[in-house]
Parts: sequence; C-alpha cells; structure tokens
Amino acid sequence: MKSLATVTVAGGGVLGSQIAYQSAFKGKSVTIYDISNEALKQAKQRVNALRDSYKRDLQASDEQFDAGLERLSYTTDLASALADVDLVIEAIVENRSIKHDFYQNLAKLAPERTIFISNSSTYLPSDFMEDTGRPDRFLNLHFANQIWKMNTAEVMGSPKTSPKVYQQIVQFAREIGMVPIELKKEQPGYVLNTILIPWLNAAGYLWGEDIVDPQTVDKTWMIASGAPVGPFAIFDMIGLRTHYNIVKEQEGDNPKLQSFLRKMKERIEEHRVGIESGEGFYHYPNPEYADPDFLKS
Amino acid sequence: MKSLATVTVAGGGVLGSQIAYQSAFKGKSVTIYDISNEALKQAKQRVNALRDSYKRDLQASDEQFDAGLERLSYTTDLASALADVDLVIEAIVENRSIKHDFYQNLAKLAPERTIFISNSSTYLPSDFMEDTGRPDRFLNLHFANQIWKMNTAEVMGSPKTSPKVYQQIVQFAREIGMVPIELKKEQPGYVLNTILIPWLNAAGYLWGEDIVDPQTVDKTWMIASGAPVGPFAIFDMIGLRTHYNIVKEQEGDNPKLQSFLRKMKERIEEHRVGIESGEGFYHYPNPEYADPDFLKS
Repeated sequence: MKSLATVTVAGGGVLGSQIAYQSAFKGKSVTIYDISNEALKQAKQRVNALRDSYKRDLQASDEQFDAGLERLSYTTDLASALADVDLVIEAIVENRSIKHDFYQNLAKLAPERTIFISNSSTYLPSDFMEDTGRPDRFLNLHFANQIWKMNTAEVMGSPKTSPKVYQQIVQFAREIGMVPIELKKEQPGYVLNTILIPWLNAAGYLWGEDIVDPQTVDKTWMIASGAPVGPFAIFDMIGLRTHYNIVKEQEGDNPKLQSFLRKMKERIEEHRVGIESGEGFYHYPNPEYADPDFLKS
Repeated sequence: MKSLATVTVAGGGVLGSQIAYQSAFKGKSVTIYDISNEALKQAKQRVNALRDSYKRDLQASDEQFDAGLERLSYTTDLASALADVDLVIEAIVENRSIKHDFYQNLAKLAPERTIFISNSSTYLPSDFMEDTGRPDRFLNLHFANQIWKMNTAEVMGSPKTSPKVYQQIVQFAREIGMVPIELKKEQPGYVLNTILIPWLNAAGYLWGEDIVDPQTVDKTWMIASGAPVGPFAIFDMIGLRTHYNIVKEQEGDNPKLQSFLRKMKERIEEHRVGIESGEGFYHYPNPEYADPDFLKS
C-alpha cells in the first residue's frame, strides 16, 4: 500500500498544529494552511512551543525536533497548499456551514487522487461526504489533545468510504506514531467520548445531588480500577466550560443532571474551571490527587 | 470516640470471610457466625486460603497471619455470637425476606448497644432499619472483593442513622485498613457502581452494535486515562454472568443494550465468562492487555 508522504493540514489551531508537527516529526512533508498571516504566526508559535514536550516526553534531541521543523511549511494560499498533495487533514473551526463551504472549495482545488480526512469531534463523515466530490476518499481521523503522548487516532468512515482508503489512513496513523482505533461504523463521540461522557455524568450526578464529595469519588475509582486519575481530575483536564456545554447540548433536559449543571455553572462563574484557571476540583500545578497520601485515608 | 473491639460477622461466604479475617488481622476480636458446621468449614477454608495473598500483597509474615487467625473464632450459635459484641456485620445471602427475618432475630438477641452494619450491594439501610429495633445504630458498610488490597469501604446511612454512629463506623473502617468512602445520602449502587455501570454499558453497547472490537475499546481507555485496565478487562474480573444479570434487571428494556445482552448470553453459553473460566474477552492467566506491547499498535 502506497504511503501518504505529502500532507496539508488545514487550520493551525491547538490540534491542527500538533497534528502537523507530529506528522513532520515522523517524516512527512507537511504544509499548514490557515486563512491569515496572523493565524499562521500563532500556528508557528504553537509548533515551536512543542519543543520542550517532545524533549521531555519523547526524549527527542534538539536536532530531531529541528529536523521536524524543516519538513514543515506555512501558507495562506490554499491552491498552492493543495497542488500535488496526498492527504488533506481538515482541522478548521467546528461549524457546519463553514465546513460545508470549505469541503466544496477543497473539492474544486485538490487533485482527484487526494484523500481528505477530518479531525472533527462532533460531525460524522456522512455530514460532509457529498461536499468533497470524493466520498470514497473521505473519512474522519480524530486525535486527542497532546497527540505525541495521548496517541490514539480514531478512524471512522462513512458508508461510502472505500475500505482500501480506510486502511491507507490506518497505515498513515501508524506511520505518524498513533495507535489507530478502528471504528467499523459511524458513531457520534467515537469510542472514547461514548464511554467517557456517561461515566463523567454519573460522577457529576453524585456531586450535583450532594451524595458524595468529588475527591471521594476519585479516590473510589482510583483504588477500584488502579487508574492514576478519577472523573473529577478529568473534568479539570477537559475544563468545566467544555463539559458544561456538552451536557447542556446532549442532556440539557435530563432531570438527574440539573443540580450538576447548576453547580458547574456556579464554578464557571467563579473562574474555577480546571487546570487552565489553576483551580477546579483540585489546585494546580500540584493537584491533591497526585499526592501519594491521597489514597491512604 | 470509643473503638469497636469485638465483632461478629454473620455469613462466612467470600466477602464475609474476607471481612472477618481482615478485621482480625488488624487486631479486632472476631467471630464468624454461619448456619451450619458445613458452612463454617468452608468459611475456615476460605480464611486459611488468604495466607498467600496477605504474604504477597501486604508482605505479612506467617507470624502476623497466624496472629490474625488466633483472634478469629467460629460458631453456629447466634445467641453466643451476639453476647456482649460491639458490632455485627451482616454478610448473609442477598435476599430481602431472609434479611428481614435475620434482622428481626438480631434485634431480639443482640445487646441494646450493639451496632449493626450490612455489606449488602443491592439493598439500602432504609430497607431493613425498622427490623433492627435500632435504626439509629444501623447502616451499610460495603466492601469490595479482595478487601486487603481493594480497600474501599463505602459508608451509607439511612435518614435515621445517628451521625455519631456513622462516624464510629468510619473510624472502624480506618482501623481495619480501609479507605472510608463517605456517602451523605442513600444511593443505590453506592459510589463505585453508580459510575462503573454506565461506563461498562456504554462499552458493551459499542461491542454489541459491532462498532468496535472489545480490545480496541480497552486500548482507547488505557491510553486516554492512563489506567491499567479498560472496561472489557473489568467485565472479565466481574464475570459476564454477574454483569448480565445486572443489565437484565436494571436495563432489560433499553433498546440500545439488546445486542449487548444477546452477545453476553452467547458467551455465557460458551462458558467464556471471564477470569473464573480462563477465558472471557482475554485469555488467563496472562491476559493480552497486560502485555507491554498491547498499547503499541
């Protein structure tokens, strides 16, 4: 199976810049496309800021990190970014109508052979396949934040995705150091969020109804499953604002989750939203759950 | 607060014998009551079989294990087991009418000051408090299997449980080496099962609908949360038969779980029910997920 060697990442946001750099680090020739020089400047800053993480988490040398940078270029010219490219990875804003327009644009400008993949968290490949002009060569490849160490890549095709193209993307995911998570059907939330969200919401219910303290829930889970974190530590990682929006949208009418929603809203108003604000259910940078004594009493 | 020094454990089954021995190991004077000499003989075998686990998991010496055995006695005489005892721990069969009768019996035979606690997984303290003749001195203390290392003890009172008695049981749990998980209200499933079951069922749904392989679900969870096990490894620990019965009872009509129920039933008929049968989603004693290469591709 022919390896996909040239890649354009559309959108240099948090995930886009990580996907682009990780691909370049692993030897791909990568272009980041974004809509303005200002956006590209920020993308470049995000990429350069990855150096410490790659050195710390992957024991990469400066030379290795620099070699990745040399395989990466930046442009605001979509037509040139698409000329002769094997793969386009769409990581633009999560908005249905903007994505519709963007795929229609890609369909016109990209070579016929080019495969398109989307990193979208919330949309299915079926949602945009008809815009791409190549439903057989379009699927989702969904990355997690901090992809160099949280290296799952969920692979999800539409009913029209070609099995051969699907396998090319599985291989591509492996080549850039990911563990491919192969979904056989479309599933909103993929694998991870499908199991994560009900678990988080059940924990949120216990806190919302004042049945038990958040720290006690985490302790229970950590002892029972041997995991290094429990659900409230994960709320702090995701950010309360993000989870609040998910619950509002998916379970806004669920009577069991109303107290949870109310309490999350209070915390958001107090700016206690998780790691990003220095305080959520724990205090950062040294959260209480990471203390070896946390599980002892 | 006065420490509870003398304990009778009613029921020498798997959990009852573990609770009794762990209490004795930690210095309590313990009696196991059961209904027949045959039942007591089995309880004694279960207790003696714990030696290797205490040596391996807690680095206990033979002398320390023997000292625990010396603090433990066995009887089929309920009246003598209750004479002058500080605490009765009920770990008898999970059957409502048998428990009703048993608590009414205890109410007659035990000293007025004696505290009763139940290890029940499925009943709330409210269900039996009126049988005990002492609703203020009755609550649940729920242990996990292999209590010497899975050392959570979920503490759950009824609205009539005295806060002082509740705190005595929290202290007792600490004294016998448990991490007390304090619930402020009654909650079916306590903390652990409240968050565990929806997570397991979401994973079961993904397998049931053939969206993804069990091993892939576990991989996703293990990478994303850093946990040593995923949901399908936990199914193998719980045993598919046990989880099948839980889903049948709680969610038997849920259309999303019908394929999952059907597939679990097939596996049960094939005797692939988890660790106890040597095969479930993994093969034992060396399950695939414990191989360091499991997360690498």
